[in-house]
Amino acid sequence: MDGKIVNIAKAIKTKTIERRRDFHRYAEAAWTEFRTAAIVADTLEQLGYCVLTGDEVIEAEAMMGVPSLEELEHHMKRALAQNGKLSWIEKMKGGKTGVVGVIRFAKPGPVVALRFDMDANDLLEAEDDQHRPYREKFTSVNKGTMHACGHDGHTAIGLAIAEIISMLAEDLAGTIKLIFQPGEEGVRGAKAMVAKGVVDDVDYIIGMHLGTELGKTGKFAYGVDGFLATTKMDASFAGVAAHAGSDPEVGKNALLAAANAIINLHAISRHSQGDSRINVGVMHGGTGRNVIPANALIKFETRGSSTEINEYMQQQAIRVIEAAASMYGVTVSMNLMGSAAGGKSDFQLAERIQKVAKRLEIFTEIVKITSVGGSEDYTYFMERVQRRGGQGIATLVGATLAACHHNSYFDFDEDALELATTVLTSSAVELLTEKLK
Amino acid sequence: MDGKIVNIAKAIKTKTIERRRDFHRYAEAAWTEFRTAAIVADTLEQLGYCVLTGDEVIEAEAMMGVPSLEELEHHMKRALAQNGKLSWIEKMKGGKTGVVGVIRFAKPGPVVALRFDMDANDLLEAEDDQHRPYREKFTSVNKGTMHACGHDGHTAIGLAIAEIISMLAEDLAGTIKLIFQPGEEGVRGAKAMVAKGVVDDVDYIIGMHLGTELGKTGKFAYGVDGFLATTKMDASFAGVAAHAGSDPEVGKNALLAAANAIINLHAISRHSQGDSRINVGVMHGGTGRNVIPANALIKFETRGSSTEINEYMQQQAIRVIEAAASMYGVTVSMNLMGSAAGGKSDFQLAERIQKVAKRLEIFTEIVKITSVGGSEDYTYFMERVQRRGGQGIATLVGATLAACHHNSYFDFDEDALELATTVLTSSAVELLTEKLK
Amino acid sequence: MDGKIVNIAKAIKTKTIERRRDFHRYAEAAWTEFRTAAIVADTLEQLGYCVLTGDEVIEAEAMMGVPSLEELEHHMKRALAQNGKLSWIEKMKGGKTGVVGVIRFAKPGPVVALRFDMDANDLLEAEDDQHRPYREKFTSVNKGTMHACGHDGHTAIGLAIAEIISMLAEDLAGTIKLIFQPGEEGVRGAKAMVAKGVVDDVDYIIGMHLGTELGKTGKFAYGVDGFLATTKMDASFAGVAAHAGSDPEVGKNALLAAANAIINLHAISRHSQGDSRINVGVMHGGTGRNVIPANALIKFETRGSSTEINEYMQQQAIRVIEAAASMYGVTVSMNLMGSAAGGKSDFQLAERIQKVAKRLEIFTEIVKITSVGGSEDYTYFMERVQRRGGQGIATLVGATLAACHHNSYFDFDEDALELATTVLTSSAVELLTEKLK
Amino acid sequence: MDGKIVNIAKAIKTKTIERRRDFHRYAEAAWTEFRTAAIVADTLEQLGYCVLTGDEVIEAEAMMGVPSLEELEHHMKRALAQNGKLSWIEKMKGGKTGVVGVIRFAKPGPVVALRFDMDANDLLEAEDDQHRPYREKFTSVNKGTMHACGHDGHTAIGLAIAEIISMLAEDLAGTIKLIFQPGEEGVRGAKAMVAKGVVDDVDYIIGMHLGTELGKTGKFAYGVDGFLATTKMDASFAGVAAHAGSDPEVGKNALLAAANAIINLHAISRHSQGDSRINVGVMHGGTGRNVIPANALIKFETRGSSTEINEYMQQQAIRVIEAAASMYGVTVSMNLMGSAAGGKSDFQLAERIQKVAKRLEIFTEIVKITSVGGSEDYTYFMERVQRRGGQGIATLVGATLAACHHNSYFDFDEDALELATTVLTSSAVELLTEKLK
Repeated sequence: MDGKIVNIAKAIKTKTIERRRDFHRYAEAAWTEFRTAAIVADTLEQLGYCVLTGDEVIEAEAMMGVPSLEELEHHMKRALAQNGKLSWIEKMKGGKTGVVGVIRFAKPGPVVALRFDMDANDLLEAEDDQHRPYREKFTSVNKGTMHACGHDGHTAIGLAIAEIISMLAEDLAGTIKLIFQPGEEGVRGAKAMVAKGVVDDVDYIIGMHLGTELGKTGKFAYGVDGFLATTKMDASFAGVAAHAGSDPEVGKNALLAAANAIINLHAISRHSQGDSRINVGVMHGGTGRNVIPANALIKFETRGSSTEINEYMQQQAIRVIEAAASMYGVTVSMNLMGSAAGGKSDFQLAERIQKVAKRLEIFTEIVKITSVGGSEDYTYFMERVQRRGGQGIATLVGATLAACHHNSYFDFDEDALELATTVLTSSAVELLTEKLK
Repeated sequence: MDGKIVNIAKAIKTKTIERRRDFHRYAEAAWTEFRTAAIVADTLEQLGYCVLTGDEVIEAEAMMGVPSLEELEHHMKRALAQNGKLSWIEKMKGGKTGVVGVIRFAKPGPVVALRFDMDANDLLEAEDDQHRPYREKFTSVNKGTMHACGHDGHTAIGLAIAEIISMLAEDLAGTIKLIFQPGEEGVRGAKAMVAKGVVDDVDYIIGMHLGTELGKTGKFAYGVDGFLATTKMDASFAGVAAHAGSDPEVGKNALLAAANAIINLHAISRHSQGDSRINVGVMHGGTGRNVIPANALIKFETRGSSTEINEYMQQQAIRVIEAAASMYGVTVSMNLMGSAAGGKSDFQLAERIQKVAKRLEIFTEIVKITSVGGSEDYTYFMERVQRRGGQGIATLVGATLAACHHNSYFDFDEDALELATTVLTSSAVELLTEKLK
Repeated sequence: MDGKIVNIAKAIKTKTIERRRDFHRYAEAAWTEFRTAAIVADTLEQLGYCVLTGDEVIEAEAMMGVPSLEELEHHMKRALAQNGKLSWIEKMKGGKTGVVGVIRFAKPGPVVALRFDMDANDLLEAEDDQHRPYREKFTSVNKGTMHACGHDGHTAIGLAIAEIISMLAEDLAGTIKLIFQPGEEGVRGAKAMVAKGVVDDVDYIIGMHLGTELGKTGKFAYGVDGFLATTKMDASFAGVAAHAGSDPEVGKNALLAAANAIINLHAISRHSQGDSRINVGVMHGGTGRNVIPANALIKFETRGSSTEINEYMQQQAIRVIEAAASMYGVTVSMNLMGSAAGGKSDFQLAERIQKVAKRLEIFTEIVKITSVGGSEDYTYFMERVQRRGGQGIATLVGATLAACHHNSYFDFDEDALELATTVLTSSAVELLTEKLK
Repeated sequence: MDGKIVNIAKAIKTKTIERRRDFHRYAEAAWTEFRTAAIVADTLEQLGYCVLTGDEVIEAEAMMGVPSLEELEHHMKRALAQNGKLSWIEKMKGGKTGVVGVIRFAKPGPVVALRFDMDANDLLEAEDDQHRPYREKFTSVNKGTMHACGHDGHTAIGLAIAEIISMLAEDLAGTIKLIFQPGEEGVRGAKAMVAKGVVDDVDYIIGMHLGTELGKTGKFAYGVDGFLATTKMDASFAGVAAHAGSDPEVGKNALLAAANAIINLHAISRHSQGDSRINVGVMHGGTGRNVIPANALIKFETRGSSTEINEYMQQQAIRVIEAAASMYGVTVSMNLMGSAAGGKSDFQLAERIQKVAKRLEIFTEIVKITSVGGSEDYTYFMERVQRRGGQGIATLVGATLAACHHNSYFDFDEDALELATTVLTSSAVELLTEKLK
């Protein structure tokens, strides 16, 4: 089977690259992946998958960091104007742009899920000859939105895998579930799909990312550990403005409240049971130099090496912020903008995938990564599967990079698309044939 | 009449100095002036005054910064051992050491009050030849308690005036009320006497202080303005200790709460309507370097050029402290340790007293003082009298000083005692004869 | 003479209103008043004034808060497109838009200066029927710039006065100096004109503002005291960004530095010698939630009831900011954006102007204002004149307002233009005829 | 050999207990262990050891947290009064109370060191019947100093081992070095012995502690990992006092500086490479409520899971403190009060000692401890030995406790003394016979 997969992946390589470039050109940010998701849904349907989207795969109440209705409306119209299919986009109203494609094979076997993320970054793409997407004319036409994290590649890989799996269907046992997630940037989207129960029947789940630690084509990491659980929040302080010269005592100073919050958030005690993090990354406040500032906004995040430690950080943070507001007699409202669980790949599953990767002889280096130091909301899927008795892993497929992730010159070696397609398809097939051996 | 007063004051000068030195030698701090007050009460009674003390002149609930029962007990015993009269001291239980002496003269007329304070400072008196009280052997035998603000002189002057007034009784109309107040240091005592109604029937009230701005014998200030209203408070934070290395997250850090309180107290907004002040003068917290500190104490004060501004400061301070505690999940308890009102001498009364002072021809310089920059709880008496339609003034009697107030070498030129006795008696007599003119 | 002045002012009222509306329609903000200043210069020249502008009246090094060269360029072009005369505008390069018109009369006498400010606010003007400028079609065509403080009126009044004075020239003795200042908003412009020596020969100076405390047409304040000295500064912190999850210790946190600065700026000690103020009105920092923030900007101001107290505040502020930067290992650069002196009207001159105002019988109420609680850089002119032995006053001319100053619905009763013209001309004439009496 | 050791240890058990009780009774705190060290030195000498003390084993410049000369003098006299031998105590002047006993055996072999700490805690010992030392009359006669961490036992064990080793000398090869360290409390003493080169020739070093995690007699931990490196510092801020009402701007507020330091110390960024800790455990500042506080003291500590991380914390801390001082124009002086390295037992040596412990059949449970969460300055010895190519381990000998360490009711099951003596002697002998096998 491996040989077959290697060959088909090679055969469709050009198509995969074209898809990736199409997604890159029409980059869409979190919860507005209307055109991307419509293409995914349509392609899956044509390949014979049963396709779910919109309310079928997204729990509205668990969506985080969703743009305003005006923005959603605007981006839906843009997607239609960019040839997004109306019938699909209509089902995705409100930003419910997740897509799940399922094939239940004739023979009984495990449910195997693969997860791909589709969203782009809020970033102005470089437009000069140094940047291949510019030279080869596939830079984003949606100004201010750019695929700078490789999710265009992830989506293209997902469709390539979908195609190969559909071709091998007769030889497989169990169920394949291909999950295309919106809003990974800001860890906003996974929770809403997990909350909807999308992976509640899954026995094995595999996640994949291009590049990151593995900035060189030919490398493969079969199991990633050490994701930090994280919570992203905004806190908005509202006070009372007053003239700073003639009646300062009348004001209620939102900026002083925010400044106290910032410092004391960083002073939250370390936790003896593991790593913790806190960062206030953005702060804006006040309107004029001579006015007691009546408003202030902070954007912050907490992290922890376990979900429990992250919850400790989040609870302390909320208390600090509420007290800072009360110290200056101002009000504060907090919004959850994103979150991810901690997570570890299952050792046993990782070992199986390692064997698959070795067997394929397409990688120059195969490694395990124990401490990734960052966060990914794929962990929500993995955690849910693990809690219900299944197994999950996170993998990385190396890709030589033109610039680092989230940079306006980001680009990756497209040869990695074929490698990723091959190893993930073979891994899925390994699991979908285990009952046949 | 003036001549008579001048002569008697001169005649009893030695007795007044002896009294002052006796009080100096047996210095008693706030709320523990048992011996001093007993002597005052006894002397007034012998002079024919109707004498009130203890519960008759002190409202228990309005007492601030009272020592513990053990300390009161200890100081009562000391007073008895130092020849304080049991019958008086018994009435002063619980630190109610205020004394009021009253004579209602035969002829109708206004109620005229004079107020004197009796307490010493918590200070170790200098004991070397540079210090006259040491050379002349009247340093405090009560170690750690010292008359370093001249209240020993004030009390002696009060008794001298009492004596002269009693001698002039036949020629006076109305009522004389001599008020001897405990606990002026820390502005702790006046409120409780005012709350008891001690000056509710008073038409004119005069307060006096030796020295301060007038550090030279021969000067007299007939009206003082610009007292700052003030509130003295302690705040005590209680958290949870924990080992700083092995489980810091378990602690609730009282010291961090207190540190936040300190900074943000000073950041309370200025007030457009006048001067304000805030100071955290003392802070103690924690038990060991490697223990999350579970306790912290701060001693602070607010001030304002009006009672309203001081109240604004106090309210803000309380909110800051409560929020600082809540920020670190610790509790806080606050205690009122003292307070004084703002205050202004009445212009009309001041003018009358100025004339008296000039007429006497005993002063080299007579001035008005508009901005004293400090606080005195005599203001409570003056404010109450003024609010009920009477008039009040604060006066200063110059005295050449050996060192500044509250210094362990403090001492004053005792010639000032006679001058103060004369001017205050003449002033009182001026008012007590106004119906006869 | 008064009658003559009253009549001319009435006669040119319509022209004055038209001028005001023209300035309103082509509102120009600080240092970009190219068109306004060109009209002023041209009009003065036609009236026979000797006109100085550009480098002749502005000291480049003392200019504060000047826009970038690109912005200046842009606004010069706009002024030309809006019929600003090239010959004048060329002289104002670099934003030197101050104008001074001078007539030296035949007979000797004092130098009398009047000062007017010309700049508009950074504000989007209301555009609905509630707003008269909209109904009567003279809202600002320069979007985002609006005369919301009445300086359009001030400039029109200045030109009306120029006209009347020129008509009365034969009867006057001494010199009239009409000063049109750029950049009063943000107290940015006066210092550069004073530094150039514009008032170094002035014996009397009069400043005027419409409205403010006197929000009703018919009122006049002949002397204003209690201006607060002020300094406006920006501080820009620069640190090092780092990923908040994977290597937070590598970052140098500019936002934490700024937050510490904010709190401790407010904690600068009160000053015993008078009022002080501090405000951080605006703060921006950071780029992304998960990045240690490498930049932060604060805009703040200090004030003091005297220039000395303001200097104390400014010095403390600079130290606090430098220490806050050093605490987090970041750098900080500070820029002076504006400043004004404290100031008091001269009693003697105020009394003379009061008499003029009474004599005219055009005001319903004439008052003195002792505590204005705000800042105005007219004080720089007044202070310089006073320091060199001359006299100065600040006056207010009441005007019924549609909304308060700096509001997008701000408008004033144009009848006030005539009243201001009359009283200021008569006042100037009073001084310019003193040698003839 | 094991059997011999077991038997001798049992035979001298009573003597060992008596010694422990003697040390307990005459408890001496850090750098004042004159009597204890004199007894140790004397005993070692009588057993035939070559004994070094004072300057021979302590590097003066590396001593931390040393009491004042007066205190040292006082405690030397006390030690003499409590029968400390003058000849030894004279050599320990200045608090140099470390003792090293050495025997070089005839046959060549490795240098094997054991380290024991001798100091007591600053604690008032419980004196009631619940406390065995009280019931059995060996509570501390040195009030305020108490052996509440078991170092009395450690010292007694060290002497018991010295005795057994000296009896087995003929059968041993190499060198035994018994190190008795002063000032482990506050991690003050080890650095000065290491700096002197005391372990520079050591091939194997073993440290031991009674109790701690192993609160039950019969347990043994053959290797302890995860000591946190730590630094203990005091920072003393000095400003300028001023009256808080009349001239607050004159003051330089040391308390505000300290409060800022406290908060921002806790806000030092987490480190991505491992655990870090910070704690300000004690703070004192100010003299009076109405005085701008001119002094403040903080006692703090940093920790890190590696020496590098602790150094990062310490450097950041120093910068924060210096900046906090500069923010309020006050000076600060910092003193190093103690420090310890991080550390890990060598795996290979630990395995050997585990075998010894098992072979002896005297323990009910033998474990490895990977994360101790606290700090011990034994790590300095271990680190130095490891850096020079030797091996080291830290061990724990279980002891049932009456109360936890550093508690005024602390006491331990004295049966643990014999167990510790046995296992450490056997361990040393194992290493001292390795060349003979």
